[in-house]
Amino acid sequence: MAFPQQVKIVEVGPRDGLQNEKIPVETADKLAFIDLLGETGLAVIEATAFVSPKWVPQMADHEAVMRGLRRRPGVRYPVLVPNMQGYQAARAAGGDEIAVFGAASEAFSRKNINCSIEESLARFAPVIEAAHADGVAVRGYVSCVLGCPYQGEVVVEEVVKVAKALYQMGCYEISLGDTIGVGTPLKARRMIEAVAAEVPIAKLAAHFHDTWGQALANLYAVLEQGVATIDSSASGLGGCPYARGASGNVATEDVVYLLNGLGIETGVDLEKLAAAGRFINEKLGRSPASKAAAALAARQDG
Amino acid sequence: MAFPQQVKIVEVGPRDGLQNEKIPVETADKLAFIDLLGETGLAVIEATAFVSPKWVPQMADHEAVMRGLRRRPGVRYPVLVPNMQGYQAARAAGGDEIAVFGAASEAFSRKNINCSIEESLARFAPVIEAAHADGVAVRGYVSCVLGCPYQGEVVVEEVVKVAKALYQMGCYEISLGDTIGVGTPLKARRMIEAVAAEVPIAKLAAHFHDTWGQALANLYAVLEQGVATIDSSASGLGGCPYARGASGNVATEDVVYLLNGLGIETGVDLEKLAAAGRFINEKLGRSPASKAAAALAARQDG
Repeated sequence: MAFPQQVKIVEVGPRDGLQNEKIPVETADKLAFIDLLGETGLAVIEATAFVSPKWVPQMADHEAVMRGLRRRPGVRYPVLVPNMQGYQAARAAGGDEIAVFGAASEAFSRKNINCSIEESLARFAPVIEAAHADGVAVRGYVSCVLGCPYQGEVVVEEVVKVAKALYQMGCYEISLGDTIGVGTPLKARRMIEAVAAEVPIAKLAAHFHDTWGQALANLYAVLEQGVATIDSSASGLGGCPYARGASGNVATEDVVYLLNGLGIETGVDLEKLAAAGRFINEKLGRSPASKAAAALAARQDG
Repeated sequence: MAFPQQVKIVEVGPRDGLQNEKIPVETADKLAFIDLLGETGLAVIEATAFVSPKWVPQMADHEAVMRGLRRRPGVRYPVLVPNMQGYQAARAAGGDEIAVFGAASEAFSRKNINCSIEESLARFAPVIEAAHADGVAVRGYVSCVLGCPYQGEVVVEEVVKVAKALYQMGCYEISLGDTIGVGTPLKARRMIEAVAAEVPIAKLAAHFHDTWGQALANLYAVLEQGVATIDSSASGLGGCPYARGASGNVATEDVVYLLNGLGIETGVDLEKLAAAGRFINEKLGRSPASKAAAALAARQDG
């Protein structure tokens, strides 16, 4: 076992979490949510996505979000961009760090971003190049690393191929997404092991969803391997777009509770985090999906 | 890593799950639930508790449950008994396997069973003796192994002491309960390691609650140590009696999905299990708390 001493949490609630929400959230509420998240000690908060409002209506206010952002010292606010047009819009709105979103599943790539994996990489190349010319850091997502909602199984060689390509194109970090939360710990370990043979493990992030309840077990398994960056979403926001009524992103509160218990530093205040989660869930008219948040609330009531 | 090849699941839903439910469940519905569970391939189903209806009204029909049980070949139906009176009532109703329930926390013991740990062990001694004279197997529970709702921390030495005492008194298996679900994986591992130094690991069961969302991570960690018996509750029934609105027993569906993914045999059919969970949750007027069950239902709808 080689647990990292510190883990960097990449909070994706305002983007990956909210983008699946059918209920429109006011820009002011998104900004307040991001600000509450910034107060928790989180160092990276993915703020929005410069995608077409036709595809993701919830992110239509990306420009207003970026312009309204109260930037806190020491906190980064990356934004997702699908192509050069998105990149330029992000830059114009003040975005200074971006992420591109690829897939390890051919079927998912075609359904989700309307092109083959190869075409998506070709589309990212000039974006990454332009970003580097502008001094803008680029993160790379690989989705469907442990399974695909359309094709089912995804072979690990495809994950390695896409992760390596994005890394070689200049992404500073590769986020490996179990988009539909079907993975289990040994599968997650084997995937990390294979990718880490081509991309330094320090450059890998685990982006796990809790759809089948496995996310924390999977995270524990890859922490044992030394993975030191975890993507998560405050209060498990958003659910799973591929399985209505099921869970989506692992909740940041549950991740922080796990890491606290393992003696791994995150710099994140669990109670402030739960407060941020409660804030956005009140706007959505529901209870946080995080079990740690529910337990914390119950303890505070009791 | 020394994963077991097979894991025995002890289904505690009809007892540990239901006993916390405020909504009265009809005896016929409990019997139908137990029968559905028996159909899944589960080999051990804790059926009820012979405790005072004053303390646990939901278990007041223990005699009717035992008399109405449709026993399936190869399935065992242990019942919880707190004392000799309970043992005799269980026997009279046809109970042929029992469990006793101790605590590693002095404060919990006094609040929950109204006596010190020492006194509880003294109370169990004649019960275990009588059971053995009758050829009745006895399981021993140790609660609060990773924390207590009243005293907070519980030292591992206390867990070891109680587990060893119950084992030496003749319990064939010691179930180690994280009653309030506060544990994290390394703490769970250290606890198992300490207990396994005094009681063979093959005689230990992990009984983890998911109150803080950590149960599957904790189970994965102790599976790595070779723990091969897991207690769980279909659909995560019952919630946490010490934190209203929070989760209780880990859901059997989530455990089975984990074990399937690890290639560990359980003999349990996940879909039949989810159906049993849906049945009892319909009676309770709510949705199953299991994420795997929710994902399965979403997949079947989709």
